[in-house]
Amino acid sequence: MQIIKTAEALLTALAQRKASVGLVPTMGALHQGHLSLIKRAISENTTVVVSIYINPTQFDRKEDLTKYPRTLASDLVLLESLSKDLIIYTPSDETLYPQGIVSKNYDFGSLATHMEGASRPGHFNGVATVVEALFTRVKPHKAYFGEKDFQQLQIINALNLQLNMGIEIIGCPIERTAEGLALSSRNTVLSEEQKKKAAQIYQTLCLLIDTIDTWSVNQMEHFFKTKIEALAGFKVDYFAVAAVTDLVPVKTLEPDLNYRLFAAVFVGNIRLIDTLELVRK
Amino acid sequence: MQIIKTAEALLTALAQRKASVGLVPTMGALHQGHLSLIKRAISENTTVVVSIYINPTQFDRKEDLTKYPRTLASDLVLLESLSKDLIIYTPSDETLYPQGIVSKNYDFGSLATHMEGASRPGHFNGVATVVEALFTRVKPHKAYFGEKDFQQLQIINALNLQLNMGIEIIGCPIERTAEGLALSSRNTVLSEEQKKKAAQIYQTLCLLIDTIDTWSVNQMEHFFKTKIEALAGFKVDYFAVAAVTDLVPVKTLEPDLNYRLFAAVFVGNIRLIDTLELVRK
Repeated sequence: MQIIKTAEALLTALAQRKASVGLVPTMGALHQGHLSLIKRAISENTTVVVSIYINPTQFDRKEDLTKYPRTLASDLVLLESLSKDLIIYTPSDETLYPQGIVSKNYDFGSLATHMEGASRPGHFNGVATVVEALFTRVKPHKAYFGEKDFQQLQIINALNLQLNMGIEIIGCPIERTAEGLALSSRNTVLSEEQKKKAAQIYQTLCLLIDTIDTWSVNQMEHFFKTKIEALAGFKVDYFAVAAVTDLVPVKTLEPDLNYRLFAAVFVGNIRLIDTLELVRK
Repeated sequence: MQIIKTAEALLTALAQRKASVGLVPTMGALHQGHLSLIKRAISENTTVVVSIYINPTQFDRKEDLTKYPRTLASDLVLLESLSKDLIIYTPSDETLYPQGIVSKNYDFGSLATHMEGASRPGHFNGVATVVEALFTRVKPHKAYFGEKDFQQLQIINALNLQLNMGIEIIGCPIERTAEGLALSSRNTVLSEEQKKKAAQIYQTLCLLIDTIDTWSVNQMEHFFKTKIEALAGFKVDYFAVAAVTDLVPVKTLEPDLNYRLFAAVFVGNIRLIDTLELVRK
């Protein structure tokens, strides 16, 4: 209960209670990473829409789409336990793609060119297409995305500027297992042994943070590859250091830019990604 | 949890969750009548503002203003028990009357001329002034008023049209004691004996409902006065039958208009009012 005496305080209190719609787009197979986004959305909005839609256009490998975990029933139980007030949006292909399941072509410049953009042709056009479709249907005030897919987050920031719908894009920190493995729906298809080993992706990135003033990017990359590919069945797709503003991998760091480490690793035929902010002393 | 598949159903669900501010203006001394308004407001809005302000300009008798029950502490306990989310607006005189405590002059035509308008000079200008001050400060989507003050309700409907702020005015049924006495803050200053007798105001109005096809308005008025003034210390201020649209007391009823019975009764120096819809067979 708020007890208010002045007209000014009343205006402020009423402004704070304006309705706001928060959107958390997901492909289901929900884990604690998603839940942390949804909890934050609940705390910041009067209405929260969680979309669950496995978007065909963002899968560059058909096999990955087919294998993607589908756990709608248990997802709904999880969501209901989080809040009884959620709107769960589970659109059909026809609803999101009335013109047929194809991506639009976007120009995101260097943001979409490297790393995931290079390794997964068409992936970001697919992501942007479905996010635009969700944004235009839900018209959220705020939309929540995990920083694990940091390149995706920056592309959505760029898309948001292009759409000019006034949506606030909120990037949320990566949730990890106790060992450090970044939570991902794809982890569910890893064995316990693979998961344990995969935590070394993060652990190695952490080690590299401390080498920033002494090692070159090439030395960092060599260390990362050697360390990770020593694990049976692990193959590094890429290791990169890039400024957060343009996401162009660099070999030398400018003093005034913010960089992150980015890595993609195949574990068998499962591809994991991770990223870590490079904090300079 | 709502699970939604189509864009149309999504639009509907989101529209239902739009923020709306409900205002329940009160002068405190809250009873079940107020609480029923507030409960309805809670059920129909995302934010509810309950204003508590004893408005000096609507008291035509200074003695009535001085004696008006002031129970803010217990009011707040009651409100907190109803909902933890309420905004309680307790403005100072200076906040609502920055230009000094005087009424504006309104033209409500016949709505303000008879019954309470005749018995309480300046009352409705005072009511309209404070309601306009509250409306312009709170800017509610919906505002709730009890039908006990039916003439006031119609004047607020007229004020609302004049202000053209798009507010929805919601009149709520009278709450009564088991014996039928209309709940009113003024009842708290009645003795148990007086309250018991005062229930005859409603009971007599109910009896009159059945006489509509056989008795003239004069006969009804005579019956009401005789019955009520037989009670020690009771004096009828007025008894009237008026159409809800113009609130002009009539002696004969037109077939197609909706009428109500209106009565004001002094119990000692406490003035009670009541009203009842005239349902014709």
